[in-house]
Amino acid sequence: MPDATARDVGEFGLIARVVDRLAGGPGTSPSVLVGPGDDAAVVLAPDGRVVATTDVLVEDVHFRLDWSTAYDIGRKAAAANLADVAAMGATGTSLLVGLAAPPDLPVAWAESLADGLRDEAALVGAVVVGGDTVTSERIVVSVTALGDLGGRPPVLRSGASPGDRVVVGGRLGWSAAGYAMLLKGGVPIEALVQAHLRPSPPYAVALALAEAGATSMCDVSDGLLADLGHIARASGVHIDVESRRFERDALLGKACRVVGGHPLDFVLTGGEDHAFVATVPPGAALPEGVVRVGIVKAGSGVRVIGWKPSGVGWDHFRGGSR
Amino acid sequence: MPDATARDVGEFGLIARVVDRLAGGPGTSPSVLVGPGDDAAVVLAPDGRVVATTDVLVEDVHFRLDWSTAYDIGRKAAAANLADVAAMGATGTSLLVGLAAPPDLPVAWAESLADGLRDEAALVGAVVVGGDTVTSERIVVSVTALGDLGGRPPVLRSGASPGDRVVVGGRLGWSAAGYAMLLKGGVPIEALVQAHLRPSPPYAVALALAEAGATSMCDVSDGLLADLGHIARASGVHIDVESRRFERDALLGKACRVVGGHPLDFVLTGGEDHAFVATVPPGAALPEGVVRVGIVKAGSGVRVIGWKPSGVGWDHFRGGSR
Repeated sequence: MPDATARDVGEFGLIARVVDRLAGGPGTSPSVLVGPGDDAAVVLAPDGRVVATTDVLVEDVHFRLDWSTAYDIGRKAAAANLADVAAMGATGTSLLVGLAAPPDLPVAWAESLADGLRDEAALVGAVVVGGDTVTSERIVVSVTALGDLGGRPPVLRSGASPGDRVVVGGRLGWSAAGYAMLLKGGVPIEALVQAHLRPSPPYAVALALAEAGATSMCDVSDGLLADLGHIARASGVHIDVESRRFERDALLGKACRVVGGHPLDFVLTGGEDHAFVATVPPGAALPEGVVRVGIVKAGSGVRVIGWKPSGVGWDHFRGGSR
Repeated sequence: MPDATARDVGEFGLIARVVDRLAGGPGTSPSVLVGPGDDAAVVLAPDGRVVATTDVLVEDVHFRLDWSTAYDIGRKAAAANLADVAAMGATGTSLLVGLAAPPDLPVAWAESLADGLRDEAALVGAVVVGGDTVTSERIVVSVTALGDLGGRPPVLRSGASPGDRVVVGGRLGWSAAGYAMLLKGGVPIEALVQAHLRPSPPYAVALALAEAGATSMCDVSDGLLADLGHIARASGVHIDVESRRFERDALLGKACRVVGGHPLDFVLTGGEDHAFVATVPPGAALPEGVVRVGIVKAGSGVRVIGWKPSGVGWDHFRGGSR
C-alpha cells in the first residue's frame, strides 16, 4: 500500500512503521537501554540529573502544511526542544514524540516526520526513544527532549550579574523575516524561508558557552528582547542591548525592501531562530561564533541603546504583538 | 477577572497561573533541582538511568468535556503516564505537560487541570516540572512522565518464560463498562463511571511485582488480552488465560444488564483501567493484591480457556474493534 493512511494500518501499524524509520532502539545509541515498544523507555542519565523539556507544535498555528514538509516539521519540533536542552548547558540524549493526526494521514507523512526528528536529533547524538500516536482533527506534534549535563551545573536564566557581557550565538531575525515573506507571497528569499521552516540552532555554541562559564542562557524562541526580558527578570538585573553591535545583515535588508520593517526589528524581536543568548563574566574568553551585544547592569528591564524597537515578541494566545 | 480566558491573560500569564497551582518548583520535591520557568527542568536521576514515557489525550477522542471535569482529565492524563512508568518497575519522579487549547479556554479550567495533574502525581511523590501552552481548536493534553528505577532492572515486556504465572493487580473492565454506561445514557453506576473518568492505577502493586521478581509487566491500557498479546509477542511465548480465575464482578454484572455484553468480555478486553498484568517465576511469592489469572507456555499467542471473548481491544485510528 504505497498510499496507505493511518486508518489503513491502524495505531499499532503506524507505530511499527514509524519506529522502523527511527532506528532508535538499543544499539543505535549507547544512551538508550530500552527504546520504543515497551511501556516506557529507559535512557542513561550518567550525570545523575536529567534535563527535560517539552514543546507542542499545532497545525496552522506553528506550521502550515502548504509551507512545511513533514520532514521540516520533524526537524523543527526536534530543534525547538533540543535548543531548550542546550540552553541549560546540556547535551540532548533522547526524544519522546506524541503525534495526534487525522485517520487519513498518509503513513508516508508520518515516516517523513520521523525522518526529520531522527536527523535533527542525530546532530547532537540523540535518538527517539518513545512516543504515542492518537487521532485528532488537526495535526499536533508534541516533543519532549531529555539531556545530560555531563557534570556541569545547569545554566539558568537567573544567574546574570551586573558587569556580565551579553552575547549571542547564532542568527537572529531570519525566521521571522522568512515567515513575513511566506505571508506576503511572491518569490521569497530561500535562505530566510529555510531558517523559518527548519531552524538550525548552533548547539555546539551553547555547550561552549556553558563550558566558558556562562552565568545565564536562553534559546531565542520568543525574540531576543523578550528572552533577555526573561533573563533580566529571573536574575533581578537590567540589560542594555547596544544596537550598533549588530552587523548589517544584507539578506534581512533585502527582505525588508519586500515586506517592510527594518532589519534591526527582525533581529531584536523576531522569534523561533533558536539562537542562544547568554551572559558571561567579564574575564571569560568568548567561544568562537558568539558576538557581544550588550551588558548587564544593576536595575531591572531591558533597554535598547541606539534604536527604538517596534515590538517585543510573540504570544500564542493573543495572536502576536508585532 | 474571575472568568478570565487564556486570551485575556496571554500565554505567559496562563503559564504563571498554572505554575502557581502546580507548586512543582524546587523545594516541593527533593527530586526537582530546576522546576518550571527556565528553558528546561532539571530532575534528579539517582539511579543513573531515567524511565520516560509520553501519552497524548485529545478532546472528543480520549475525553468529552460534558463528561469529564478538567480535574478528572488532569488526573487521567497523569495516571496513564505514571502507570506506564510503574509498569517498568520504576517510581515516577516528574511530569512535563503540553496543553494545546482554544484562546477562549477559561483560566480556571487550566488551573483545575493542573490541580488534577498535581494530585495524581503526588500519589507517587512526583511533581510537574515543566510544560508548554499553545493555541489549538480542540484541547490536547500531552504528558511525559519520568521515573527512577531505584537500582532495579527495568521490567520489560520481553522477559516472560514458560512456567511463569500470569498475575493481575487492580480492577479490570470497570473503565470500559463505565464508558458504555455513559454512552447509553440514563443513570449510570457511579463507581464504574468514576473508573473511566479517573482511573486509579495501583502503583504500589506494580512496584511490589517488580521487587518480587516479575519477569515481564504491562499496564492494562489496551485491554487484558491485547496487552498480554504484547507480552507474548515480545517474549516469544504462549499465554493461557483461565477464565475461571476471574471472580464474578457484581457491579459489572449490573452494568451488563443495562448496556448488554458479558462481564468477562469487559474484564478481558476493556481498556484504560491501568491495572497491571505481569508474569512471575514459579517460585516467587505473590505480592498482596494480585490474583493469578493464567500461565506462560512455549509457543505463541494468547488463548482464553473457558470463554470465547468478543473482541481484543482498542485501536485509535480504526475507531475501536469491540
